[in-house]
Amino acid sequence: MSVEETIRDMALAAKKAAKVVSVLSTDKKNQALERVAEKLLEETKTIKEENERDLAHAREKGLSDAMVDRLTVTDGVIESMATGLRDVIALPDPVGCVTGMWLRPNGLQVGRVRIPLGVIGMIYEARPNATIDAAGLCLKAGNAVILRGGSEAIHSNSVLARIIQQALGETGIPEGAAQVVPVPDRAAVKALLLQEECMDLIIPRGGEGLIRFVVENSKIPVLKHYKGVCHVYVDRTADLHMAEEISYNAKVQRPGVCNAMETLLVHEASAEAFLPQMAGRFKTAGVELRGCPRTCKMVPEAKQATEADWPAEYLDLVLAVKVVSSMDGAIEHIAEYGSAHTEAIVTSDYNRARRFLREVDASVVLVNASTRFNDGGELGLGAEIGISTTKLHAYGPMALEELTTTKFIVLGDGQIRT
Amino acid sequence: MSVEETIRDMALAAKKAAKVVSVLSTDKKNQALERVAEKLLEETKTIKEENERDLAHAREKGLSDAMVDRLTVTDGVIESMATGLRDVIALPDPVGCVTGMWLRPNGLQVGRVRIPLGVIGMIYEARPNATIDAAGLCLKAGNAVILRGGSEAIHSNSVLARIIQQALGETGIPEGAAQVVPVPDRAAVKALLLQEECMDLIIPRGGEGLIRFVVENSKIPVLKHYKGVCHVYVDRTADLHMAEEISYNAKVQRPGVCNAMETLLVHEASAEAFLPQMAGRFKTAGVELRGCPRTCKMVPEAKQATEADWPAEYLDLVLAVKVVSSMDGAIEHIAEYGSAHTEAIVTSDYNRARRFLREVDASVVLVNASTRFNDGGELGLGAEIGISTTKLHAYGPMALEELTTTKFIVLGDGQIRT
Repeated sequence: MSVEETIRDMALAAKKAAKVVSVLSTDKKNQALERVAEKLLEETKTIKEENERDLAHAREKGLSDAMVDRLTVTDGVIESMATGLRDVIALPDPVGCVTGMWLRPNGLQVGRVRIPLGVIGMIYEARPNATIDAAGLCLKAGNAVILRGGSEAIHSNSVLARIIQQALGETGIPEGAAQVVPVPDRAAVKALLLQEECMDLIIPRGGEGLIRFVVENSKIPVLKHYKGVCHVYVDRTADLHMAEEISYNAKVQRPGVCNAMETLLVHEASAEAFLPQMAGRFKTAGVELRGCPRTCKMVPEAKQATEADWPAEYLDLVLAVKVVSSMDGAIEHIAEYGSAHTEAIVTSDYNRARRFLREVDASVVLVNASTRFNDGGELGLGAEIGISTTKLHAYGPMALEELTTTKFIVLGDGQIRT
Repeated sequence: MSVEETIRDMALAAKKAAKVVSVLSTDKKNQALERVAEKLLEETKTIKEENERDLAHAREKGLSDAMVDRLTVTDGVIESMATGLRDVIALPDPVGCVTGMWLRPNGLQVGRVRIPLGVIGMIYEARPNATIDAAGLCLKAGNAVILRGGSEAIHSNSVLARIIQQALGETGIPEGAAQVVPVPDRAAVKALLLQEECMDLIIPRGGEGLIRFVVENSKIPVLKHYKGVCHVYVDRTADLHMAEEISYNAKVQRPGVCNAMETLLVHEASAEAFLPQMAGRFKTAGVELRGCPRTCKMVPEAKQATEADWPAEYLDLVLAVKVVSSMDGAIEHIAEYGSAHTEAIVTSDYNRARRFLREVDASVVLVNASTRFNDGGELGLGAEIGISTTKLHAYGPMALEELTTTKFIVLGDGQIRT
């Protein structure tokens, strides 16, 4: 069977299964997820053996340490997959939730009720735990899911797929509800992206290259973010101690993630009092600074920034720094170079806080808090499947609710239109 | 300037204007819409003259009477455009509405606030009033809009565009906020669909051919429905008088629209008592019936339906009729041939009503009411810009709220992530 035929069959099976999964009771869905969690813990040994095959291959191919690290499945990783599933079990089921209901003058009762999206395709890279996380969230929201992990994780993902499918089988749920693409081949991704008759949504997660490939080739709606070029703007009226804590946290706490700060903007009235001391703390943490000319004057150890630094997503201990003459300058800089992901202001001024919240276009806009809070769990949404900077449907973290849509229901007693 | 360059310039102007429009006060937006309404009434004579040029051309080209009818702008049509705008003025502004706000354990206040989508492209066919309706809704929701009407309405749309732009100018709003594509050429549509850097959403309205063309060629997310193959299912337990009124209304009241019934499904236990009488009423109304073999036995005047009838959207006084042996049969038929648009059941049974609401996948599912209620105004949403059977973002009528999205706002007092 060709790759295209394999994928086509998977998509058809998913569409068929989606109809079943869409009307499952919450109990039934939770039971299946619990069964997956149990089996993960029971089969720790097998999972690690299969993962070892991927790791050996990765070392042979000379993948970077960071890649090998992301690929590695330890006891701890398996336990966290099981815990993650149990967290999803504990979340309320969005399906069936009536988000509003109202009465029309003619007596019709009109409401909106949450329903699953249908079939979701998830395309991601190294981490095998994404297989479990994504399957758990999609199933809980009543969707079927087709998972396509990185080719370097093919053995790990295959054993996880087998575990998921057995758990589904044992719970009486069609196995088409959660499938892993068994072909470690870009042709498989391409074929998946053409199944618009069967699939409702594609979520790619990974490097900008993968995501652009998906967007270019998909006939199915895609929710994604390309990158996170997040700013902290330290206003003229900022509490400078607070600004320092937030800037440090946003850059240093976990520099390799999309909600880390990549550019620090400082109002000129705060720059002299703020930047040299802030730079000292960054230096201690090993952060390389790339500054505008005014920054470099105040912070001699900063390198001169080039035009390439302002749109850069370093994902590393590197930070661009710019002094701006006004809040307008900050907002304009963000509009030009930001990625609509996460933007923060540190200010003590009520009006400026309101203005920043209103005028800055990003999926999460914060006042006096670290950019690192753009995360489903941190915002109180529960587990998430990714962050969207596409405005349609979901803007920001995509949690259970974003894996559903609403339909209208109308309860009448014989109404006709006149 | 080439078509591509013209469109590119329009898209850039729209993107620039969108930033301004997104933060306009409700008063200002309403003021602009009121100015458009006033100017429409002031310039009735000019509008009709320009429309006459389109009509002359249409008659020359031998367009159908129905087409010419849709194209015709009378005093009444102009008045209804103005009234439509005033109805939109009266609707609450969705922008800035906080749809929810909650407190996190660390003291962060997290909320979701409605924001405009950005730049919307509207691609439609004959009716020039769509130009005004769409511009009104998009502007009220804080979006910029690029309108591309049918080439046959080019003179009418151009004068309407000039009126809109003058009204915007007089209100101090950039003219890029609502533009009409001046080129009556499919190349213009194609060029528009490639402006993904500037545009956030495309809404096509019209025949299936146009919509498929848009979906095939768009790099921008599209919300659309291809067609409305809507069913009324008369259950075993239906009140047959009610079933007759609803079926008649769904087919006959306005057969040329997407929410009209195209197939009637009747439970075999109701068929003998229901179908012959119902058929008599349809006959009086001039409805041609195409029945399954069992229908034809009970209704001798019905023609034999072929496989082509079940997925057909007649948009005419033609109706497919099928007797089903069970509710399962009805639900399966709808799943196979329905278009996820509008589906209705007539029943007196509580459990069957609940099951139909839960299991039938359509943007609007009704119990004991006519399919003709799938309409923004009828459902209480106010004016709409179209009906979506795409599940993502909006499923059903797209009113003001569906022309917005939400971003997260986070109010802190120095929170960092640990």
